[in-house]
This record gives sequence, C-alpha cells and structure tokens, in this order.
Amino acid sequence: MTDSINRRIVLASRPVGAPTSDNFRLETLAKPEPKQGEVLLRTIYLSLDPYMRGRMSDAKSYAEPVALGEVMIGGTVCQVEVSNHPDFAVGEWVLAYNVGWQSYAVSGAEGLLKLGANPSHPSYALGVTGMPGFTAYMGLLDIGAPKAGETIVVAAATGPVGATVGQIGKLKGARVVGVAGGADKCRHAVEVLGFDACIDHKSANFAIELAAACPDGIDVYFENVGGAVFDAVMPLLNTGARIPVCGLISQYNATELPAEPDRLSLLMGLILTKRIKVQGFIIFDDYGHRYGEFERDMSQWLAEGKIQYREQIEQGLENAPEQLIGLLEGKNFGKLVIQVNQPL
Amino acid sequence: MTDSINRRIVLASRPVGAPTSDNFRLETLAKPEPKQGEVLLRTIYLSLDPYMRGRMSDAKSYAEPVALGEVMIGGTVCQVEVSNHPDFAVGEWVLAYNVGWQSYAVSGAEGLLKLGANPSHPSYALGVTGMPGFTAYMGLLDIGAPKAGETIVVAAATGPVGATVGQIGKLKGARVVGVAGGADKCRHAVEVLGFDACIDHKSANFAIELAAACPDGIDVYFENVGGAVFDAVMPLLNTGARIPVCGLISQYNATELPAEPDRLSLLMGLILTKRIKVQGFIIFDDYGHRYGEFERDMSQWLAEGKIQYREQIEQGLENAPEQLIGLLEGKNFGKLVIQVNQPL
Repeated sequence: MTDSINRRIVLASRPVGAPTSDNFRLETLAKPEPKQGEVLLRTIYLSLDPYMRGRMSDAKSYAEPVALGEVMIGGTVCQVEVSNHPDFAVGEWVLAYNVGWQSYAVSGAEGLLKLGANPSHPSYALGVTGMPGFTAYMGLLDIGAPKAGETIVVAAATGPVGATVGQIGKLKGARVVGVAGGADKCRHAVEVLGFDACIDHKSANFAIELAAACPDGIDVYFENVGGAVFDAVMPLLNTGARIPVCGLISQYNATELPAEPDRLSLLMGLILTKRIKVQGFIIFDDYGHRYGEFERDMSQWLAEGKIQYREQIEQGLENAPEQLIGLLEGKNFGKLVIQVNQPL
Repeated sequence: MTDSINRRIVLASRPVGAPTSDNFRLETLAKPEPKQGEVLLRTIYLSLDPYMRGRMSDAKSYAEPVALGEVMIGGTVCQVEVSNHPDFAVGEWVLAYNVGWQSYAVSGAEGLLKLGANPSHPSYALGVTGMPGFTAYMGLLDIGAPKAGETIVVAAATGPVGATVGQIGKLKGARVVGVAGGADKCRHAVEVLGFDACIDHKSANFAIELAAACPDGIDVYFENVGGAVFDAVMPLLNTGARIPVCGLISQYNATELPAEPDRLSLLMGLILTKRIKVQGFIIFDDYGHRYGEFERDMSQWLAEGKIQYREQIEQGLENAPEQLIGLLEGKNFGKLVIQVNQPL
C-alpha cells in the first residue's frame, strides 16, 4: 500500500512547561518526488525520545532548536520506496535522522545508514542497537567505568537507555539498582532485565528504600532523570563516585527553579569532599568514533541472549504528539516507537 | 638556640561559621624526648592552608576531623634536633605531616620526607614543590587538560595553588585569566606571574569584567573558591569545559545554604547541555603515585626561572590562629607560612 500524500507534524508553537497537543500541527502535502541521485523514503518507524523536548525550546542548548513551522526532528527507520540512486535498492531499510515526523521524505545518500534488505528487527536501530543503546554503553563504560562488585544506580530503568545501562552493568559484575515508576516496571527490571533491585520512585518512602537497596553506597549513578531521584542519590554517593549525565527528564518541562535553598554549593562541596566526577556527554559528538566497538559488543550480547529489550510500538503518526507528551510523564514502558507506515 | 619547653596549639572548640581565636588554645608542655629509633623534630616552618578549616569541623568529610583538645594538623618543615635513628642526622631537614601546630615533636622515621642537609629554600616544600604545587599540577594537567589556545580561569590567583595553575597554564600555551582580591594581587598576577589578565572579585562589575577578559569563553575553570566567582564563571563555560574541583574556600565558613532559588538543577542542566566535566580530587589520595612526575617537571621549571613563587612568612606559632582566620578571608598574599623556630 502506498499513499499519494505526505503527512507531517510540524512545531506549531513553543511549549511553556509541559508540551500540549497545541504545540504540534499535522499537515498534509503532496508526496515528494525524488530527483536523479535521490531516493523516496517511506517512514516505517519513528523514534520518540526525551531529548525532543529540548529541541522544541529555543533556549540555548547543544543543538539547534526546531524552527517554528518545521517538521519535528527524530530518528526514523525507513524503506526505500523509489530509488534514483545506484547504491539504494527499492525495499532496502535505512536509519535516517533527516526525515523526522513525516510519512515520506526525499533524501540523498548522505546521512542514511543501511540496515540491509531484510533486517530481523529493523526498529531496534532506534533503540538497543542505536542511539539509546550506544548512549548507555559509552556513558556507563567510559564515564561510569564500573568495577565488579560496585553499585550502579540507574533511573528510567525500563526505558531503552536505563535498561541497557543496567544489563551492561550486570555483565560487568556490578550490583545494579534500578529506579522506575510503578510496580510493573520494577518487576520487569528485576525479573526480566536481571537487576538486583528496583525501587518505585512513586513510593512515599522512596529515599529510604533506595538507601536500603544500596547498603554499600553508590559508585556509579547514571543520570537520566534528575529531580527527586538525584536528591535521594546524593547522600548515598561513595568516595570516588562517577556520574555520567545523559539526561534530566524530570527538569525538561520546568519553567522556573525550585523555591528552596540554593543547593549548588552543596553539590559542589559533595563533589570536592568525595572526589566525585560528574560529566555530561552527547553521544555522537563525544563518542561517534567508537560506534564500531559498541556495535560489535551489542550484536554479540543480543545474539547470546544477554541483553533483553522491550519496545512499545504505537500506531499512527497522528498519535506521536500525545505519545511524546506521555513519555515526558513516564507513561511509556520500554522503548517508545511510532509505526508510521506498514512495511512494503 | 633551643628551648626546654614545647608550645602547641590545640583545637579548643569547633567553630560555627568563621573560626575565632577562641577556637584555639596555646599550651605549654615539657619538650618531649625521643626514644631509641626516634628523632626530636624542631619545627621551623608551619604551613597554613584553607583545608584546615574543614578539619576543625566534625562534619563528615574526606578526612578525620581534628579531635577537641588535639594539636591542629598541618604540614611542617622541621630540622632534626636530636637523633636516635641511624637514618637521620642532626640538622637534617624533613617535611612532616605528623607534627602540626607545635614547636617540637618526637617522630619515628615513618612519614618523614627528607629534604637534605642544606636545602636552598626549605619552606618551598610546603608550597610550590609540595602539596599546593602538586595539587595545581595534577588538577590542571590531568583533569583540566588544557590545550594551547584555550582559556583557563583560576581564582585565588596569587595563592600557592592558583599562581601555579596559571603559570603552568601559560607554559602549556593557554590564555590564563586570574581572579584575585584587590589591585595589588591582580597586578602581581599579570606582571610577575605572567597571566594574560586578572580580575578583582571585589569590583562591583566583577562578572562583566570577567566576561570581557574571556572573549572566547572558558575551557578550564580551576575551582578553588566557589561562591560569586563560580556564579560568574558558569555562563561563560564553553562546550566541553573541564572543572577540577580543588577547594571551595568561600563556602567553608557557611552555616547554612544560600537563599532560594535552588540552582542545583541549573548546574546539572549546564553539565548536560555543554558536556562539562566537574571532578573533585584529593591530591595524595588520587595522585600520590604520580608525585615523581611533578617533582621532575617543577624542579626543572623552577631552575629555568619559568615559575615564580611568592611566600608570606609570619613569625611565631602564637600568631597561627589569627593568620589562618585571615587566610580564610583572603588577607594573605602568596603562600602563608608561620616560622615557628629559627633554624639550628
């Protein structure tokens, strides 16, 4: 089935606080036609990720914001529907970062990563074998550098980054304590992903339960949420702890700083007296040159069944805004992917 | 001239906020006598350093606090006045960390670093060739890792750590901007130490002047003060900036956190979006194994006249409390040392 139109979702307005559906607009256009040297890409899967919230704002950040009226950015797994390029065959699968939230796009060869004619799990390229998996791998191993027997804490424990961090931590011999929202996710982290424990951040006794699950303190805290989780982690950090800072999802919708005493000096004092390393990273900027190393290890771990991976695939481009809004509230369970079109 | 008594300064009470002279007590005891295998050390120079404020508190930190009634800790350069140990000759100079604020002490050989029979600048072992110099060297080169052409900012620019950081930064080809209190110190940093600029933190326009002195932003901020200097540094930090955290002298006397808003999330957000590394370190714990490397480089730089070093030597153990109180207020100019006894 192919369409004669292209549907796309553009940024209609910039959110103040949490995004709402009004910040997005669905547009319908003629399906584009590839020129010589170009291909027509049919979007099969669109990845939804926390970083997208940042790109909706025009605050100064590491990446350019999406312009108003422009297609929302995002990673996609596409099939080549029409090819006017000698290197691409019709039906071939590619990973693309220049398509975004739309059902079709025309592209040159640049920026397309070939996934082959018949990949067994094409959507995995948006998760465990792609950017989130690579983020987990490098942040944990290069910045966190866990040693066997040390304690790792990671939040969003069933998300594509957190789940991978924890499982790689277990492979390296560490004790892994997850943090997740709700009993179902916590059970999954322990029973399916093999974490040693997983604490529900919705619990009234969250900080106490986290401390109890980390009797030897915390050596590596993989930071992807911030907020109340980091507050509970801070007093548990061991001397020499490492904190790779990958994301701060709990802060993304904040419109002002909390009205509490200024703990900036408290954090700096902790970093000093406990000799802590806190390091932010942007995966492809910092580690693009080490992708091969990740791909080799992760392929092997997946083939050996050592890494489990859970996806939540939702149907329909028109549902992407609502799904992203839910993601920022922690409503997803596993890697959130929108299926935009049926495969060819 | 030798004495028949030992004078020592003990911690009389723990300070709340800034230390006062009441927190110290001068005691007079019989001069101790070394047994077989021991030496009697005659304290010539006592080092005063910001970290001593931390040891006066019983807050949990990286090192044990000084117990009430115990001799204040500190590095000293001593001469052997009596030797009952075959490896030590009378008159020989040593660096000791087990003597502290007293005029005499008995010691075994453990923990004594030999400085030779006739060192040209024995007190330098408390500064540029000792702990402060080593701190500057490793913090800047290992954590800060400046590249030629990058901008380094360091506060307490005329102190033993800051002055050394800046001069090593210049040797590595970086642009170095100091921060110091008052016109005299700023002039010294530029004219004697060779910094590219030095900004007076007492200026009403401090943040604006710092920004003007760092037209290409800040790549390495060597943190030894915290407070208003860090506040002014934060918005100037470049992507990929490194912050070795060596000290936070402006915070040591604080009894409560500053008023709202809570900027902890702001700092974490900055670390994330700018991929910043913030790392605390305790020099001998983290880098003791690399002392030889420092000693080799620093000796050569001093011999070649590439590193300038300024000391402020005050007379009399009884003045140590008042001098430490002044040090915490930024009153010293150069490395502060108390001369406790005349050399033999």
